[in-house]
Amino acid sequence: MKTGSGEERTSRLNALTLKDIREAHARIEPYIHRTPVFRCSTIDEICEGKLFFKCENLQKAGAFKIRGAANAIFSLSKTDAAKGVATHSSGNHAAALALAAGWRGIPAYVVMPENSPEVKKKAVAGYGAEIVFCKPTLEAREKGLAGVVDRTGAQFIHPYNDRRVIAGQGTAALELCEEIGGLDVVMAPVGGGGLLSGTAIAVSSISSNTLIVGAEPEKADDAAQSLKLGRIVVPENPDTVADGLRTSLGTLTFSIIKKHVSDIVTVSEEDIIRAMRTIWERMKLVVEPSAAVPLGALLSGRKDFRGKRIGIILSGGNVDLERLPWT
Amino acid sequence: MKTGSGEERTSRLNALTLKDIREAHARIEPYIHRTPVFRCSTIDEICEGKLFFKCENLQKAGAFKIRGAANAIFSLSKTDAAKGVATHSSGNHAAALALAAGWRGIPAYVVMPENSPEVKKKAVAGYGAEIVFCKPTLEAREKGLAGVVDRTGAQFIHPYNDRRVIAGQGTAALELCEEIGGLDVVMAPVGGGGLLSGTAIAVSSISSNTLIVGAEPEKADDAAQSLKLGRIVVPENPDTVADGLRTSLGTLTFSIIKKHVSDIVTVSEEDIIRAMRTIWERMKLVVEPSAAVPLGALLSGRKDFRGKRIGIILSGGNVDLERLPWT
Repeated sequence: MKTGSGEERTSRLNALTLKDIREAHARIEPYIHRTPVFRCSTIDEICEGKLFFKCENLQKAGAFKIRGAANAIFSLSKTDAAKGVATHSSGNHAAALALAAGWRGIPAYVVMPENSPEVKKKAVAGYGAEIVFCKPTLEAREKGLAGVVDRTGAQFIHPYNDRRVIAGQGTAALELCEEIGGLDVVMAPVGGGGLLSGTAIAVSSISSNTLIVGAEPEKADDAAQSLKLGRIVVPENPDTVADGLRTSLGTLTFSIIKKHVSDIVTVSEEDIIRAMRTIWERMKLVVEPSAAVPLGALLSGRKDFRGKRIGIILSGGNVDLERLPWT
Repeated sequence: MKTGSGEERTSRLNALTLKDIREAHARIEPYIHRTPVFRCSTIDEICEGKLFFKCENLQKAGAFKIRGAANAIFSLSKTDAAKGVATHSSGNHAAALALAAGWRGIPAYVVMPENSPEVKKKAVAGYGAEIVFCKPTLEAREKGLAGVVDRTGAQFIHPYNDRRVIAGQGTAALELCEEIGGLDVVMAPVGGGGLLSGTAIAVSSISSNTLIVGAEPEKADDAAQSLKLGRIVVPENPDTVADGLRTSLGTLTFSIIKKHVSDIVTVSEEDIIRAMRTIWERMKLVVEPSAAVPLGALLSGRKDFRGKRIGIILSGGNVDLERLPWT
């Protein structure tokens, strides 16, 4: 007896709207931080614009990911929820899923390659997830996940190609637009596209004149390529410091991005690191490389938004302090 | 013709009060940030208390120092101000003085040893100060400063042993107490004692039941020694990672601290670094080692404030990102 699964199937066929994002916000608001919007006069001077940084690095579990994970988990029917949730991400999504599952009091299963860094294993275990180790291949991961779902009946929550997750990620831009009026541009990094597509739906509905721009590493420019070629391009072993942006788009995120995003700008490794360092030095904020990619596009002159009001989603702050990219 | 110098001499003889701090606040408010107060549930759990971090690392020029510097500069008569201000600090105070002098449109002269790190020279020059280089000895510094004052008529603004500076530094605690009621303890790091004595005057006047606790490195425990021995102890080449806390107390700061501070706790280098890293990892804030000393006292168990509401002044975030103490 799966309550609501019929409705769910139908709603998957409908386009996501601002209403979904508002509902997600109401659902997750009691659990997440309403993160602050920071400004920095030095960076404004350098970019000759007015920049508004939405600080998701200060979010619970250190990244925007908790928004999508929490929305997915609190959207589950009681019966489905009881069996728990599962995923095979080893990054911020896994930690977020574990944390949100704890809030709902249900189990979380995370399939991880046995050679994952200790720090990631610890983070996920620290939030109370059960880790299922697998060989470090995509095949082994998928098999591991299928095994877990089979054994437990847990719901698989995809890190980005899931409308509940996308709606959750859109709540960051919703808060930004509610707080800061008259933005000319909103920029977000793009990896799998969950954050950018949620952002796109929120911003395009609230403020139809605002440009929505994605930013990704030159070395993982699959989203830009996908838009250009009209099909999802899968990058081959992308080697970028922005480790959160190595994934390719999903079918759902691609279709939303195609519709609402005016441009995807690519940024060199050097400019990503420079932007990251500028945020650390000038704003005194710990951000991960992925979060610095949009500012990298401005500092390098790849995007010229002089005189504009620019919102930037600082996506996260989970970084290995032993290995900083400038040392 | 030095307007107001008679009044000034008289007021130096009077004790500093909350009124001075409120006046300082009104004077500097248009220029400085009202910094946010951050919390962190993980750190609360570790310390078994409720911690409220006043984020002066997010202050203009990256430290609380701008409060005292700005108050000193905007307290000057028009005639005195016109001749400019001078100091021989090479740290946060010099940068703050340069910045505030720029706001008032007057010159700032900073005497610095010729072997100062490039990054410090750049910061001070970047805020528009005129740097006067000297040999790297205390004697040469003092001679250099006397020369500048002689030549220009600039007012010497001491980094901490100055009532205008102390009143300015006290405005951080004033804001903290206005925002967060019912604090059982307020903790601040102590080097020269400007921040701690300003904090002590503000907190003891607003909330007489609140404990005021200073924190300093074991390796630069001169303030604790001074309280114990009843005279100002000058440390000999203190070798601590908390570079902002290597100075000794001044006559003014010592007399205020003696009166209002209940305890000065000392913290090991290891615990300072651990606390700094905890703030970076968990709060995603860049803070300098000095700012982490109070939390170090709690994490190490040197101070047990379980169940208490504890305010902590995170003094600054100016740190060399190339040389982090844990790498």
